[in-house]
Amino acid sequence: MALLVQKFGGSSVADVDAIRRVAQRVAASRAAGDDVAVVVSAMGDTTDDLLDLAGQVSPNGPPDRELDMLLTAGERISMALLAMAIQDLGTPARSFTGQQAGMHTDSSHGRARLLDVTPSRVADTLKRGEVAIVAGFQGVSEDEDITTLGRGGSDTTAVALAAALNADVCEIYTDVDGLYTADPRIVPAASRVTRITIEETLEMAAHGAKILHLRAVEYARRFGVPLHVRSSFSDQEGTWILVDRPLTGALHQDGTTRHTSSASEPHPETHTEDPMEDPLISGIAHDKSLAKITVVGVPDRPGAAAKVIGAVSTGGVSIDMIVQNVSTSPHGLSDISFTLPEADGAIAVAAVRDLQQELGVEDVLYTSHVGKLSLIGAGLRSNPAVAQRMFIALADAGINIEMISTSEIRISVITDQDVLEDAVRAVHSAFRLDSEADAVVYGGTGR
Amino acid sequence: MALLVQKFGGSSVADVDAIRRVAQRVAASRAAGDDVAVVVSAMGDTTDDLLDLAGQVSPNGPPDRELDMLLTAGERISMALLAMAIQDLGTPARSFTGQQAGMHTDSSHGRARLLDVTPSRVADTLKRGEVAIVAGFQGVSEDEDITTLGRGGSDTTAVALAAALNADVCEIYTDVDGLYTADPRIVPAASRVTRITIEETLEMAAHGAKILHLRAVEYARRFGVPLHVRSSFSDQEGTWILVDRPLTGALHQDGTTRHTSSASEPHPETHTEDPMEDPLISGIAHDKSLAKITVVGVPDRPGAAAKVIGAVSTGGVSIDMIVQNVSTSPHGLSDISFTLPEADGAIAVAAVRDLQQELGVEDVLYTSHVGKLSLIGAGLRSNPAVAQRMFIALADAGINIEMISTSEIRISVITDQDVLEDAVRAVHSAFRLDSEADAVVYGGTGR
Repeated sequence: MALLVQKFGGSSVADVDAIRRVAQRVAASRAAGDDVAVVVSAMGDTTDDLLDLAGQVSPNGPPDRELDMLLTAGERISMALLAMAIQDLGTPARSFTGQQAGMHTDSSHGRARLLDVTPSRVADTLKRGEVAIVAGFQGVSEDEDITTLGRGGSDTTAVALAAALNADVCEIYTDVDGLYTADPRIVPAASRVTRITIEETLEMAAHGAKILHLRAVEYARRFGVPLHVRSSFSDQEGTWILVDRPLTGALHQDGTTRHTSSASEPHPETHTEDPMEDPLISGIAHDKSLAKITVVGVPDRPGAAAKVIGAVSTGGVSIDMIVQNVSTSPHGLSDISFTLPEADGAIAVAAVRDLQQELGVEDVLYTSHVGKLSLIGAGLRSNPAVAQRMFIALADAGINIEMISTSEIRISVITDQDVLEDAVRAVHSAFRLDSEADAVVYGGTGR
Repeated sequence: MALLVQKFGGSSVADVDAIRRVAQRVAASRAAGDDVAVVVSAMGDTTDDLLDLAGQVSPNGPPDRELDMLLTAGERISMALLAMAIQDLGTPARSFTGQQAGMHTDSSHGRARLLDVTPSRVADTLKRGEVAIVAGFQGVSEDEDITTLGRGGSDTTAVALAAALNADVCEIYTDVDGLYTADPRIVPAASRVTRITIEETLEMAAHGAKILHLRAVEYARRFGVPLHVRSSFSDQEGTWILVDRPLTGALHQDGTTRHTSSASEPHPETHTEDPMEDPLISGIAHDKSLAKITVVGVPDRPGAAAKVIGAVSTGGVSIDMIVQNVSTSPHGLSDISFTLPEADGAIAVAAVRDLQQELGVEDVLYTSHVGKLSLIGAGLRSNPAVAQRMFIALADAGINIEMISTSEIRISVITDQDVLEDAVRAVHSAFRLDSEADAVVYGGTGR
């Protein structure tokens, strides 16, 4: 008997039929003897509809506090309906708001951070053998104001609840049946990943994979919550995201099974292949909405990079990748490049130009419309053949690499936005990640 | 500078335009220097839409607790949107749930009773010069579960908030521009009542007038909250409901102005007419959905009536009017008649028939499809000419009276349901309540 936290996104509870389907799944888990806490998002388009109303009544932009009050009505509706549907199947269930579930946050409306999670009412409900349903995305501040956790907030709620309840697993039900080796909309032959480490998932989420929110993955990593990403529309096994394992350990000895068909999944440990021919790749993430700034001729002295990056960050711009080469110029000058969300380009350029004189920088170059491809897998740094194969694949496809950045488990390259999808396909093929089965993708996204 | 509580029903906030109209009214009150707390119902059809969803996900009937959780999403949406709309006009405003506003109730989901009202956050908001918006209809139980107050709950919230804040007046904005001498849908010439006592309003509400919920009126009477019923669609003066005045005092010396045109309203005190020709009538209430049970030949001994009524009440039937004549039979037998909601007829008849043998009752007669007309005004009992005129009017219209019951300020008669509307019109004319101006009735009802 396990304690499960099951999270259902907006597309999983989009209408009455979907809610009843989720209710059957939850009731079945309960009937199998597991304790079940459910975290639920607002139904389908509810959030967008409410945002639309807010825009209509406040042409000058709705105030954050009231927007949180408004949007949290969405989960209130879905969770109450789900509790009703589960009870209608004869399984006792009760719903809890973020406040009732002990989701205490700071006061940053619209992007509140969890401070403390004390789900005693949820725990009591589970102890009585009932299903507890918790509103995703929402919390309560120390001033007892209603807050929301921002986009991806329901995933974060689920992981935080699982951590606080010491759940055996946090199941993330979504409209895709797991994590894929690449976005199946771009690489139709992308294959489902059976198992992946939390660190690799973190890199995937941080570098553009949309299925799990970065913040939820960070939370799961910190608190050691195993995640299981599954489809709410099928009984596919989905993807297990495992924690508390060394990055290059036993798991990765069987990592080669990740891109085999699901038929081999029951015994992944027994499956081996040549680790050189098939490196330990988890998948390819990509991000299409980036821009790039290169600061040319930065004096090679301590603090120069800090000043450049500091000026941009102060303007509220979130910087993505930073690359600085060693100074080879006789004048001790180097170039610093960094990527950032395309939407923040103008602010960032202005911030750097303001510094140009002070720093004695030669030039500031701005390139919008760049893309990033990230190859993620265990032990990449210690395996130069992987990078080599990746760069060859890109060269063979005629794709120019503008920047390179690597971590222990990731190699990212910046390319022109227009060739990014070709790049993803080329690298996916080069690492033989292509599956014979088509990926299953259902429409819509939750929050 | 006054402290106003303004309550807006569902039809007053039915859509974005309506919400913006309400926002302008609230902002204008604030700009005029008054402190304003607003109580708001769910938008238009929201409650019905949510009930419909509940029915779809729980064919066996939704559980009360979850239904309360669901329905309270309605006010959350309307109050947040109203706060946004008010802020958009440059007037600071913040919304509060029933819980945040200190609406503490018992745990009777769907029909919770207020136990304690501690609106300290609302008071603080007003002190800062901001508008406070409170969700009507909802509260929180001692177990921190969300509760609703049942139909008419938003009126009750408003009155309770006004009492707790010691407000100068509780303004009830609705889709009709005040209390009328009769239902304008039945008596198009019904005239608006300018002033009325709380006791008369209580009788009106208890005997079928739909504009104010009985419970809210009872609350206002107990805590001495002056009410002002107004239209949210016009600037009509509406109806003042006054408290803490003797039933036959100064107010009723000018009660004759109630059915004059609004032109005379600014100085009602200076307006006098022959009090005999125009008795002190506030209006006519009616109720069309009643049934009648007559218990024939009840032994005229102590406790007999109590047993009959007790048996019916135990079955959960709410009894309306009870009439027992003095015993004139040589055998010491009398008849007891009572009215009750038509829907409860079968249960009540069964309960009384069960007792028939034990009590030695001769017969139990059941009549469905009866109606009740109530004439309400000050000092009716001390003015027999009023009853006489009413009975003559009904006789002239060929309407048979089946039962009569009177109080200090009310005369009620039971008639056949089919002639009830004719009866209302006949009595309305007989007391010269007809106005020359047409009544203004806007569609829809709030909760």
